[in-house]
Amino acid sequence: MAIEMKYVFAINFKSYETAYNNVALEIAKTANQLSSKYSNVRIILSVPSVMISKIINIYDDIYLQHIDPLDYGAYTGFLSVDSLKYLEVKGSLINHSEHKIIYRDIEKIVKKMKELNKESLVCADTPGEAAGIAYLNPSMIAVEPPELIGSGIPVSKAKPEVITESLKAVKSVSNIPVLAGAGITIPDDAIKAIELGSSGVLIASAVMKSKNPNKVIIDFVEKMNSV
Amino acid sequence: MAIEMKYVFAINFKSYETAYNNVALEIAKTANQLSSKYSNVRIILSVPSVMISKIINIYDDIYLQHIDPLDYGAYTGFLSVDSLKYLEVKGSLINHSEHKIIYRDIEKIVKKMKELNKESLVCADTPGEAAGIAYLNPSMIAVEPPELIGSGIPVSKAKPEVITESLKAVKSVSNIPVLAGAGITIPDDAIKAIELGSSGVLIASAVMKSKNPNKVIIDFVEKMNSV
Amino acid sequence: MAIEMKYVFAINFKSYETAYNNVALEIAKTANQLSSKYSNVRIILSVPSVMISKIINIYDDIYLQHIDPLDYGAYTGFLSVDSLKYLEVKGSLINHSEHKIIYRDIEKIVKKMKELNKESLVCADTPGEAAGIAYLNPSMIAVEPPELIGSGIPVSKAKPEVITESLKAVKSVSNIPVLAGAGITIPDDAIKAIELGSSGVLIASAVMKSKNPNKVIIDFVEKMNSV
Amino acid sequence: MAIEMKYVFAINFKSYETAYNNVALEIAKTANQLSSKYSNVRIILSVPSVMISKIINIYDDIYLQHIDPLDYGAYTGFLSVDSLKYLEVKGSLINHSEHKIIYRDIEKIVKKMKELNKESLVCADTPGEAAGIAYLNPSMIAVEPPELIGSGIPVSKAKPEVITESLKAVKSVSNIPVLAGAGITIPDDAIKAIELGSSGVLIASAVMKSKNPNKVIIDFVEKMNSV
Repeated sequence: MAIEMKYVFAINFKSYETAYNNVALEIAKTANQLSSKYSNVRIILSVPSVMISKIINIYDDIYLQHIDPLDYGAYTGFLSVDSLKYLEVKGSLINHSEHKIIYRDIEKIVKKMKELNKESLVCADTPGEAAGIAYLNPSMIAVEPPELIGSGIPVSKAKPEVITESLKAVKSVSNIPVLAGAGITIPDDAIKAIELGSSGVLIASAVMKSKNPNKVIIDFVEKMNSV
Repeated sequence: MAIEMKYVFAINFKSYETAYNNVALEIAKTANQLSSKYSNVRIILSVPSVMISKIINIYDDIYLQHIDPLDYGAYTGFLSVDSLKYLEVKGSLINHSEHKIIYRDIEKIVKKMKELNKESLVCADTPGEAAGIAYLNPSMIAVEPPELIGSGIPVSKAKPEVITESLKAVKSVSNIPVLAGAGITIPDDAIKAIELGSSGVLIASAVMKSKNPNKVIIDFVEKMNSV
Repeated sequence: MAIEMKYVFAINFKSYETAYNNVALEIAKTANQLSSKYSNVRIILSVPSVMISKIINIYDDIYLQHIDPLDYGAYTGFLSVDSLKYLEVKGSLINHSEHKIIYRDIEKIVKKMKELNKESLVCADTPGEAAGIAYLNPSMIAVEPPELIGSGIPVSKAKPEVITESLKAVKSVSNIPVLAGAGITIPDDAIKAIELGSSGVLIASAVMKSKNPNKVIIDFVEKMNSV
Repeated sequence: MAIEMKYVFAINFKSYETAYNNVALEIAKTANQLSSKYSNVRIILSVPSVMISKIINIYDDIYLQHIDPLDYGAYTGFLSVDSLKYLEVKGSLINHSEHKIIYRDIEKIVKKMKELNKESLVCADTPGEAAGIAYLNPSMIAVEPPELIGSGIPVSKAKPEVITESLKAVKSVSNIPVLAGAGITIPDDAIKAIELGSSGVLIASAVMKSKNPNKVIIDFVEKMNSV
């Protein structure tokens, strides 16, 4: 599906305690306020499946963190991609560095999500993985060198070539927005990623493990909005 | 944790379409009405993670279908067992026939759930598997021969010895309630399971794939209540 | 590593009974005889790990069917890619349709195999998956639509576009030989695959489940040699 | 199958470099010499699948480290348990701490191995896991607390209750020999395990990572033989 042309600030809640408690709700409130104030940045919250219904009433641009390549059926404790039909989420992360799946499953999920008019944000470790994923034509691709995730060393500064080569590899296949992730800590890291050609950033620990998550979000969105 | 001495009627919603749409909510309403009417039967609904918050307002005796043996942390698209602290569920299914996990992970989950004062209903294929699980002292054990699940051939009639041998194996270790599951289709199948010594049944397709799930539930609960 | 410019006839023994018994040894003998007779076809036998030492004395162009992305260490029942240093095999199948692994693991295995001067034949379901793999620069890529594997419906006739599009996708990245597989049953299927631009075929059931495997091999090699 | 009444000294080669190179062959020679000299100790070598045919000519009491719960068929890169029919091994380790599998798969493998007249040595982390496994009636059970594996802290001294409780739990089900493992470093650790009632030890790093593996083996076997 077509993505509006804004810079994307995607926050992966992961499974930190803050993903499940009041902090999660506070982040949603902040996202809601910022979204109406700053029109050039799209804030996506990728939340635990159990939190969807709690957060949707506060902020509605939310994603799942994973979805299973299954139809409806006799599956216990899996989340069938078909069920997205009934879920208020806009889309889902797929193939995150901490939840890698095989190519065939990425393909099935992305295809089904398109049919359901949902967005797919597929992660890749490298330009090569991103290129293969581009053939599936997901809504967005996020490139994250695994060794930098959670490191505080921003990909946009430590490995800018991963971003530029991923952009080249993806664009040679299809014109899909590419986000940068891994080690993004301060707003300048996001600005740098945008200058390199990416459409935004995927962030996690810098927000979820912060003592003041709302301030971190505000700082990023303000700066990204002014690019 | 101690389980009240009622017969258990546990419905596993699995990932049928009815687990996600209005049928799920109707089942919750029925469960709520029956629970106040029939005091000898405890109805447990094991629902998809994304449905917890939608169903909890209607009926509060709900379980997850699976939970991951993880603490809080940098895990994307997994449901940390720690998060049960914040979830309104009473407990979770563990090691269901369609979501088997290794013994070590069952152990970690059961232990953590006890600390969080949540119930654990661990599934087993056979008396032997049930015996091993009994050493972990979960709240309940459900025994389901995998070849009968979804078959319409009730374990309590086709393989009563699986129930009686499981009871013997479990009770030799610890006095844990044992449910019977697989192929349970009509109320008589549940009565037979109770007569064999089990504390109730775990059911799925007979409810979730029925044209009239509410009637099925009513029939079961009425009959089980009158034992 | 550079691959000699011959057409490749790769036989995946899989885990058929014939992969373990005398048939496997007979196939090796036939492969050895044909290899010295027909210079335009390279015969690769992809055998179970337990068969390497039995077959190597008869025929030496053999591959493993899978290898684990592990260094040496405290791993029980896995086959560390490092161990290839001591194994007489020429290389290994990787990411076969029946043993799919995540991209990150393909990358680690291919990289390590290059260091050990071993060949990597990486499988892909689709042109997109093949393109992503091409960035890893393995020795060869085999494209096999999973729905045709073991079907007797040859990819080269039923889905020639999978071959041609895979060739296009791969060659846009790197000049890697591409094999075609799935449903290859008679020599004409291989000839057709070669005419479409592939460098040979990957075959399994048509040989391993044949009443006369040696005749099948002879027929294929003779015909492929005469292209 | 009945196991001869000797103390068992089982060496798990794991995937150390020494499992694949000349050290492995030297260990086999030593095992062969010791076996004819000391009649009260049975030495079992659990070797990588690729090493079977190399070691069998030197020493014939060898095990696989893992086997897959599969029949013959279209499986690539798995080792079907059916294939044991053609393999010279005496049996296999199953469910090792580093290769845990679900109970259902342990059951399938043990059952099939009995049919093929092969031995099964199933590992367990705890008395509870061991009890469940005892219902499957394998040839032997090895109990290894995972936190002590490779630690150099011997289970027989640091956690003797794991051995005694495992023996109690197993014997309450069936009279299956129980080995002790994890942290076994010196012959006294084995003697202590035997004194606690176990039938021998499962060892790995103390041999495979030693500068003089043969001396370690000789020391253990001499001491165990004199019990």
